[in-house]
Amino acid sequence: MKKDTSNKSERDIIKYISNLFRFPADSPVINGIGDDCAVLRKDGKSCFLVTTDTLVESVHFELAWHPPFLLGRKTGAVNLSDIAAMGGQPRFALLNMAFPGSAPSWLDDFLAGFHEILQEYGTLLVGGDTVKSSNDLSITVTIIGEAAEDIICYRSGAVKDDLVFVSGFLGDAAAGLALCQSGLSSHGLGQWQQLIKAHLDPQPQVQLGKILAESGLVHAMMDISDGLATDLAHICAESGTAAEVIKEDLPVSGQMTAAAGKLEKPVLDWALKGGEDYQLLFTVSPDHEEDLCNLVHEKTGQQIFCIGKIIEGQGVFLSDTLQREEVSFQGYDHFTAWKS
Amino acid sequence: MKKDTSNKSERDIIKYISNLFRFPADSPVINGIGDDCAVLRKDGKSCFLVTTDTLVESVHFELAWHPPFLLGRKTGAVNLSDIAAMGGQPRFALLNMAFPGSAPSWLDDFLAGFHEILQEYGTLLVGGDTVKSSNDLSITVTIIGEAAEDIICYRSGAVKDDLVFVSGFLGDAAAGLALCQSGLSSHGLGQWQQLIKAHLDPQPQVQLGKILAESGLVHAMMDISDGLATDLAHICAESGTAAEVIKEDLPVSGQMTAAAGKLEKPVLDWALKGGEDYQLLFTVSPDHEEDLCNLVHEKTGQQIFCIGKIIEGQGVFLSDTLQREEVSFQGYDHFTAWKS
Repeated sequence: MKKDTSNKSERDIIKYISNLFRFPADSPVINGIGDDCAVLRKDGKSCFLVTTDTLVESVHFELAWHPPFLLGRKTGAVNLSDIAAMGGQPRFALLNMAFPGSAPSWLDDFLAGFHEILQEYGTLLVGGDTVKSSNDLSITVTIIGEAAEDIICYRSGAVKDDLVFVSGFLGDAAAGLALCQSGLSSHGLGQWQQLIKAHLDPQPQVQLGKILAESGLVHAMMDISDGLATDLAHICAESGTAAEVIKEDLPVSGQMTAAAGKLEKPVLDWALKGGEDYQLLFTVSPDHEEDLCNLVHEKTGQQIFCIGKIIEGQGVFLSDTLQREEVSFQGYDHFTAWKS
Repeated sequence: MKKDTSNKSERDIIKYISNLFRFPADSPVINGIGDDCAVLRKDGKSCFLVTTDTLVESVHFELAWHPPFLLGRKTGAVNLSDIAAMGGQPRFALLNMAFPGSAPSWLDDFLAGFHEILQEYGTLLVGGDTVKSSNDLSITVTIIGEAAEDIICYRSGAVKDDLVFVSGFLGDAAAGLALCQSGLSSHGLGQWQQLIKAHLDPQPQVQLGKILAESGLVHAMMDISDGLATDLAHICAESGTAAEVIKEDLPVSGQMTAAAGKLEKPVLDWALKGGEDYQLLFTVSPDHEEDLCNLVHEKTGQQIFCIGKIIEGQGVFLSDTLQREEVSFQGYDHFTAWKS
């Protein structure tokens, strides 16, 4: 009987592809489909990390409110974030663009933004492709990074009793998106500046990712692109564990809380299910919590937030003093890269 | 004054991007934008070759006549051909797909074809992305290959008096496309089989590319994706030379000549300007012509065709006993990868 992929979810497609495309035992692929990056042996000690993302207008971004310069920065940032999530240094980029008709008038601004963020993170554009599309404007970015094989952090390393950390506020990007959609963003300025920036111009945590990976203290790591509930569920699924998140420990910003009030949205939904925060999500043994927090503070001045712990079982659970509910895979509903 | 990219041709865009994204002198990028692949230093002697192409339905392929299995093979082949063009061994692939709505019912067949061609050329799928589009079905493939640094063939190596060779018939793919467009292909079978196959299921010249590169006799090489007139003009532009092509030496197949008669099209247009033949185009010193032909014949049983020579000046000229006309950049009119 013929198999049929119609109505397959992306997770089904990934599973199907992973089964079809297997790796021989002696392959130089240390890690293929199923993490933030593929990991390819480069030389004796170093690996190339490879990640790719496609963004389509009206699905992943809206030119109505996304200034082309910042869109250029963001298309770089979402891929740089995947390199950060494994502890790598981004090195090379490829940029593919498809647009209907001739090159759009804002292309220079877009390229200037893309160039700026690549430069900030020491990444060189080495190739790409520009094609005519039928209707859609779409952009594919591929980034190749590098890391020593023995420091790379995978999703699969979490163990029972690990503490779960995030590197910054959750839900700011979702709030920023909602403000842009509602027309309240007023050109990205004013009282919502931090939220609008989180949506339009997210910062990949490349420096922090390297510090965490090089510390040798982090067991599992990924970036939060599809929302905490979904992304922590990926870590749990890959590690064969469950996680318990403490509702009151979720780090949310004052601006996000205010925006939730203004737009009559639940703060928790944005914090838990809002996508595209591009913060790092990682686990560490409780024995090393203090060392890690001190190291991060010393090297970056940055605070990191403990939001729960790894437990036995399956799934992600959200707890407060009254109840405990499962929230696995309740994240941002967009197809994402083959990282699940 | 603000620069404006609107109405820029793809060659203008590439020039703009090449100027914006420059490489520092100490970079591990041996070759960036402007050839079939980027060349990145891997270790002391070996390099990674990276190439990427985006194909959009109704622009680069038509599902009306392209069986999904063969489309899967072709999306792999066009990128494998770029690795072949530098003399590399393909190693790793990434596959990005954007489709409107849910996964199409033919996805399994497409993936089976893509899997088959990767396997034939020893290439492993290591990642990708599947996203929802607004309207278009588009596919981006990125392939990473490998080659010893000292054998890689570039477009820029042609020198005066070199002979210009192609690895097989020209215009078969253009004839196959015209037959499919005209409805004469009758499901790809019958008297036009070779032409239909050239269009639907082209064969990347990976083995030949390696033999040519390893011979040390080839000065410049690329694959013919945009038609001989355009692609030879790229070699000439990169090498600072001109080329003279002898009309009667262009290798054309009996089927292609018959199809041109049937469809009342000029044979020469397909041979000179038809895209997507994915044959190799390369130059060699006349002193080594015989050695190279013997080597190729011995190792592959394949014939290669001398079609002209490299001369001083600029441009590509087509000659017969009566006249000599410039035909530079008269190729297939589609946006192509940043290889020009």
